[in-house]
Amino acid sequence: MNTAHLIEFQHTGNELIGMLDIAETGKQIPFEVKRVFWTHSVPNGTIRGKHAHKITEQLLIAVKGKIIVTTEKADGNVEKFELTNSTEGVYLPPNVWHTMAYFDDAVQLVFCSTVYREDDYLRNYEQFKEYYKS
Amino acid sequence: MNTAHLIEFQHTGNELIGMLDIAETGKQIPFEVKRVFWTHSVPNGTIRGKHAHKITEQLLIAVKGKIIVTTEKADGNVEKFELTNSTEGVYLPPNVWHTMAYFDDAVQLVFCSTVYREDDYLRNYEQFKEYYKS
Repeated sequence: MNTAHLIEFQHTGNELIGMLDIAETGKQIPFEVKRVFWTHSVPNGTIRGKHAHKITEQLLIAVKGKIIVTTEKADGNVEKFELTNSTEGVYLPPNVWHTMAYFDDAVQLVFCSTVYREDDYLRNYEQFKEYYKS
Repeated sequence: MNTAHLIEFQHTGNELIGMLDIAETGKQIPFEVKRVFWTHSVPNGTIRGKHAHKITEQLLIAVKGKIIVTTEKADGNVEKFELTNSTEGVYLPPNVWHTMAYFDDAVQLVFCSTVYREDDYLRNYEQFKEYYKS
């Protein structure tokens, strides 16, 4: 599905031993994982992201805390996803301008479908709108 | 390398915007990632793991807090890895009995080289010693 949407993970555990969430490629992760990054120690209210990708698909999870993900398509359609539970993540297709706002000492985990290439990034908003103009 | 060892990740960020660590398959992750799981809300001092794998390779990271990973080979050789920094992880080959002790509200991230199969697990210590007896 080429739009941003929530994905539910497998979940196990309890309060006595801790919580565990699981994602497998080809199941909850709809692409081969080529890169993973994790973000932490982000000051409360910080907004990161502010870019789009030409090719890279991503799956973004708030393992702890709260992350508000805002996506915008080139046609102006805006969606918000409030991640407060590590049992779900948001799939980001490569055609959305996205920002993430971090709260409550959030820990972010992101799976990517590509290795890093700077020329995959659209870091300028006008450039993004222009790139996807059709 | 078929022994447990530390792996260093790429690292970027600062106190103003937060910290970000990066791992790519074929670089810091020495296998294709087929499964990922993340563990959190683990009571302080809890010990998890207590099994070995027949095939699965893993890369284990303490994204937050402290995790003490203890590995034991079938020949009795024991190693300890104290993970307190998200810029490094411990590679676990499939032939080690491993336990993880969680401290300081630890968040654990684990990459696996296989999808889940219960018959890949050696969950009994004697069975583990027997399996790798040569």
